[in-house]
Amino acid sequence: MSIHAVRQSQSHVVWDNSIEPVLHIKSGETVTFDCLDASNGQITPNSTVDVINSLVVTQLDQVNGPVFVEGAAPGDTLQIDVLSVVPASWGWTACIPRFGLLADEFPEPALKIWKLDIENGVTYFDEEKKIKIPLKPFAGEMGVARGKKGAFSTIPPYATGGNLDTKHLTAGATLYLPVEVDGALFSIGDGHAAQGEGEVCGTAIETPMTVSVRLTVRKDRPYTKTPHFSTPKFSLDNEEYYCTTGVDSHMRIATRAAVRSMIDFLCAEHGFSRVEAYMLCSVVGDLRLHEVVDMPNYVVGMMIPRSILGASTKIKSRL
Amino acid sequence: MSIHAVRQSQSHVVWDNSIEPVLHIKSGETVTFDCLDASNGQITPNSTVDVINSLVVTQLDQVNGPVFVEGAAPGDTLQIDVLSVVPASWGWTACIPRFGLLADEFPEPALKIWKLDIENGVTYFDEEKKIKIPLKPFAGEMGVARGKKGAFSTIPPYATGGNLDTKHLTAGATLYLPVEVDGALFSIGDGHAAQGEGEVCGTAIETPMTVSVRLTVRKDRPYTKTPHFSTPKFSLDNEEYYCTTGVDSHMRIATRAAVRSMIDFLCAEHGFSRVEAYMLCSVVGDLRLHEVVDMPNYVVGMMIPRSILGASTKIKSRL
Repeated sequence: MSIHAVRQSQSHVVWDNSIEPVLHIKSGETVTFDCLDASNGQITPNSTVDVINSLVVTQLDQVNGPVFVEGAAPGDTLQIDVLSVVPASWGWTACIPRFGLLADEFPEPALKIWKLDIENGVTYFDEEKKIKIPLKPFAGEMGVARGKKGAFSTIPPYATGGNLDTKHLTAGATLYLPVEVDGALFSIGDGHAAQGEGEVCGTAIETPMTVSVRLTVRKDRPYTKTPHFSTPKFSLDNEEYYCTTGVDSHMRIATRAAVRSMIDFLCAEHGFSRVEAYMLCSVVGDLRLHEVVDMPNYVVGMMIPRSILGASTKIKSRL
Repeated sequence: MSIHAVRQSQSHVVWDNSIEPVLHIKSGETVTFDCLDASNGQITPNSTVDVINSLVVTQLDQVNGPVFVEGAAPGDTLQIDVLSVVPASWGWTACIPRFGLLADEFPEPALKIWKLDIENGVTYFDEEKKIKIPLKPFAGEMGVARGKKGAFSTIPPYATGGNLDTKHLTAGATLYLPVEVDGALFSIGDGHAAQGEGEVCGTAIETPMTVSVRLTVRKDRPYTKTPHFSTPKFSLDNEEYYCTTGVDSHMRIATRAAVRSMIDFLCAEHGFSRVEAYMLCSVVGDLRLHEVVDMPNYVVGMMIPRSILGASTKIKSRL
């Protein structure tokens, strides 16, 4: 099994299925991507707040790729196993005017540069006050090309993924995306060293990163209509979670879509009736606001601990 | 310190500050409440699905109380330490027509009766499939009377609490509510043996319960404008969380309120600037949809692990 590489410069700033792939791989192969931070190199460890007002917005949130995965066709699912995510030794967080959940209340630009202690997996928000943040690095952007013709901004997430900004997609997680074009055309970017659920000010600890993923075509998951993912055991409360999402410009519609998608999954994989699955979601499924700032689309997730689902061999062998 | 008791029959079905207290206590005293399930006894372990269509809706979601806490005045905060929550040996979950996040997709009534194994803290969704659910009992309703005159349904939550349906309020948690009337007039009910974040079908594992809380008047928390709470270490990922909420009929407005409230808290208790607090929320604060079915109001929470907040003695001594 060969390992492929995508370079920093091999990036694009819109989702467009006419962009030529930078790489062709077989299903099941691994690719390592060397990615700049989401400012596309406009912010550096020496930047001051002045940089915020001069950011070229059309250059932000670039993604590296696209990678053509042989055999992927519309209707399939692309399985993305996140193998490793290594941030750089620095990062930044900013308030960018007119961006973020409380943008109207924070009109002034602000910038914080972080020093990341990769070896110990921490960074300090305030060293004197000992406000220490554990690093949980992941790629904010993972997506495949949309079926629709045209160029779509990489800022909002879509049903095909993209700027999901979902903190659970750390190394060990597996993401499932619906394929809409031949070869899937997968791209990745937007390194985050740590982020809360929601990413409320609009930025996380943004950082360049090196990320490795294994890309596999799945023909047996027709119910993957929006991003689904599973988390590794150590990342939350010592439980593995299976998660479905809704991506929509209305928070309530996205929430309903996430629940409906979990019901579809539970029926398809566990043989529940729809009403049984709905009740199970109500008593053990957790709704979380993964992302509330990449307008116009929200990402809402429903997460179920896989241990709850018991002795189903079906799920164990197929997830 | 005396321990007080409120009986099953001492309940009311609207929030109304003219309801006579069933008990007067001193700040810091403990009260034990014996509560029927949220159907107010209309559903029993022998009920069949037919009961759902004949439910008297105006009798649902009764709360036990109110308890007058001496010294509490408008502008204060009532601190509720949840000391113990003991469910009955049975519970129910239902789909009630026109109620729940996907009500339009689940028009038919449905009812599931659960046998709760209190000793081992579990119940089975499906014994054959070994689908086992850990019990995490809490009171779905905890609230104080509103300042406004009139009778307000106990179905929606308010800024003064009520039907918060927040799964984190298990034994060991502390809830803070803004006081709007003299004596606070605290009531509690709606036993849940287990519930997911959101309570999507509209009901949890509903159960009668015996619940003990300590009620303390706090004069030093002027920033408690909506429910805040802290969680005990064992309830999530071995972290203690501090949480603020937004309660509103628009999900986005509730989300913004939860974040704004956390910013207020971080500034008041930790001396951050507002923009520092906003950034901190973005990199470590988690947005969760605690409740999405008690219309017209949603409860959205922002949760921050208290360990992040470091060596601040202020928060340690005051929370």
